[in-house]
Order: sequence, then structure tokens, then C-alpha cells
Amino acid sequence: MVILVDMDDVLADFDGEFLKRWREEYPDKFYIPLEERKSFYIKEEYPEELLGLVTGLYYAEGFVRSLPEITGAVEGIKKLKEKGHDVFICTSPLIQYRNCVREKYEWIEEHLGHDWTLKLILTRDKTLVQGDILIDDKPEITGARVPVWEHVLFEKSYNEYVKGKRRMNWGNMEEVLREI
Amino acid sequence: MVILVDMDDVLADFDGEFLKRWREEYPDKFYIPLEERKSFYIKEEYPEELLGLVTGLYYAEGFVRSLPEITGAVEGIKKLKEKGHDVFICTSPLIQYRNCVREKYEWIEEHLGHDWTLKLILTRDKTLVQGDILIDDKPEITGARVPVWEHVLFEKSYNEYVKGKRRMNWGNMEEVLREI
Repeated sequence: MVILVDMDDVLADFDGEFLKRWREEYPDKFYIPLEERKSFYIKEEYPEELLGLVTGLYYAEGFVRSLPEITGAVEGIKKLKEKGHDVFICTSPLIQYRNCVREKYEWIEEHLGHDWTLKLILTRDKTLVQGDILIDDKPEITGARVPVWEHVLFEKSYNEYVKGKRRMNWGNMEEVLREI
Repeated sequence: MVILVDMDDVLADFDGEFLKRWREEYPDKFYIPLEERKSFYIKEEYPEELLGLVTGLYYAEGFVRSLPEITGAVEGIKKLKEKGHDVFICTSPLIQYRNCVREKYEWIEEHLGHDWTLKLILTRDKTLVQGDILIDDKPEITGARVPVWEHVLFEKSYNEYVKGKRRMNWGNMEEVLREI
């Protein structure tokens, strides 16, 4: 199978690192614990007057490169490859691309090795990418085409409401994919 | 139609800028005039002992950002959009991605505007991208999947030998696409 794996919050802990830095930087300001997040986008859950500070944190130089690995992700994606699947990392850059695009490649090189940087696909429209499966935490994925992949939801609090899609995490990945 | 447009040597004059800098930097060394190029890859046509100098030029910081526009490209791609097509720029980063990935976005922002950076797709495997047409100067495009697009060859000396594909340049683009 061609398996497409999303990067932010599936391989790299974007939301966790954001919250850690936010609490360190602004300990007295409003925040939402990870498990209480109801929206895919951080900026939809923070008050408008804080948005400059919020985006300032994750657009900053070094933020994307510094993201910790989601537990089990590196081992999990390597296992997919070992099982003979053709695995690609399919990720949408931030609108302010300046630091994020290079740092996504750097993150992949550091955590998975240079060969995996050749498997990176950057696109803001994932419906255009062919594959059998897309593993992604975003609740609904739309774009210019009808997707040909099955969307397997990577489990997060903000996608619990979605019905009718398989759900997985790196712990039960093999069982879930075995059924496909 | 969803139209995918390659970047290097279709929108941005990679080979032309390379040759210009090569002649400036190493006026006494071997070179190949653009119209005599027979291979898609510059490095396949230069002697092995020069490869360090060759790649050093195009991996350098600022090279990709500085590329001149291919004549008619910016006007041409905007025209495709005006005609109602859904246009994406589909480009393969260099193996040494460090400067090139960010600078591709910067080039698009400078020459086409920020909105077009959202239409950029970076992938080393273009067969994975869905579209009706891919406009690309590479003679043969292979990868993990059977492509769903029709490959329209952007005319260059090194793809003249290819039979059975439509050929175009920014001058005759409208005529060629009208037949599809």
C-alpha cells in the first residue's frame, strides 16, 4: 500500500510543544490543556487578543525543528516501511512558511534520517495526493479533488466527534491497518 | 481542469542562471551552451572532476531565490488561473534541501504573490499527485503510482527525443491546451 502519514501531531508534537512554551512564556495567561482541545486549530481556541502571541510562538525560528516526537511515531513509521508499504510523509506548511518549510525537512532528517526527507510531500491540499491510506488527525480533509485514500483518523480529543472513520494511534496501528 | 506546473526550467530559469554563474565564476572551464544540453540533469553532462563546483553553485544560499523568470511564465500561469483552471505548482526539491525548499516559496511569493505559495506542492514523486495535466520539462516521470495526469512536455533541447507527448512553451500554451 501507499501510506501517507501526516506530520504535525502525528509524528511531531506541535500542540504539546506549543502548550509547553505558552505556559513557560505566559504563565498567567489563558490556556487550554491538550486533552480539552475541541478544535483542530490552536488559534481557534484562544481569545482574539492573544492571537499575535499565539502565532508568534509557533512561527518562531526553531519551533518546528524543536518539536518532540509523538510517542511511538518514529518506531511506528519505520515499521510501516519494514512491512513493505511505500510510506510518504504528507504535511501542510503553515501559511507563514518562512521557518516551517525548511525545519520540517530538518526535523525529518534528525528523527528519521536523510532518506526520509526524500519521502516528504508538502501540500496544503492533500486531496490531490494519491495513496491507499492517509493517517491524519484533522477531522475533515477537503480540497480540489475527491480523495482516493481512506482517511484513518489519528486519535485526538478534537476529532472524537467524527463518525464513520477508522481511528488509530501508534500503539494500535498494526491492528487497525490489518483490517484494511 | 487541475493543472500542475513544474517550477525549475518551466517557471524559473534554473539552467540558464546556472550557466550564467558558471561562466562568470569559471570562465576557463568546460561548459555546455543551453541549446546543446542533451540530458535533463546538469550534473550528468559535466565531467566528474567538476561536480563539486557544479553542485556548489546551485546548492548555494540565494541561488534558487535569484532565478530569473522563464519568458512568459508568470503571465502564462496567471492566464491558466484566469481561465478557471485550478493551478498548482508541483516541484521536486533538490536532495540537499537546505536552501532550496524555503527559496522556492520565496521565489513564488516574489514573482506571483503570497497566495500562490499556498498552491505549491513539493514532492520528489509527482506520480502521486492527482491532476488532469502536468506541464514539465523532464522527459520521463516515474514514481510509486501510475500517474493520472497527462504529461505535457515543456520544450527543451534535452527532451526533443521524446515521442508521443504533446509539447508546449509559454508562447503556444493556449493552442496546445485547447486540444485537451
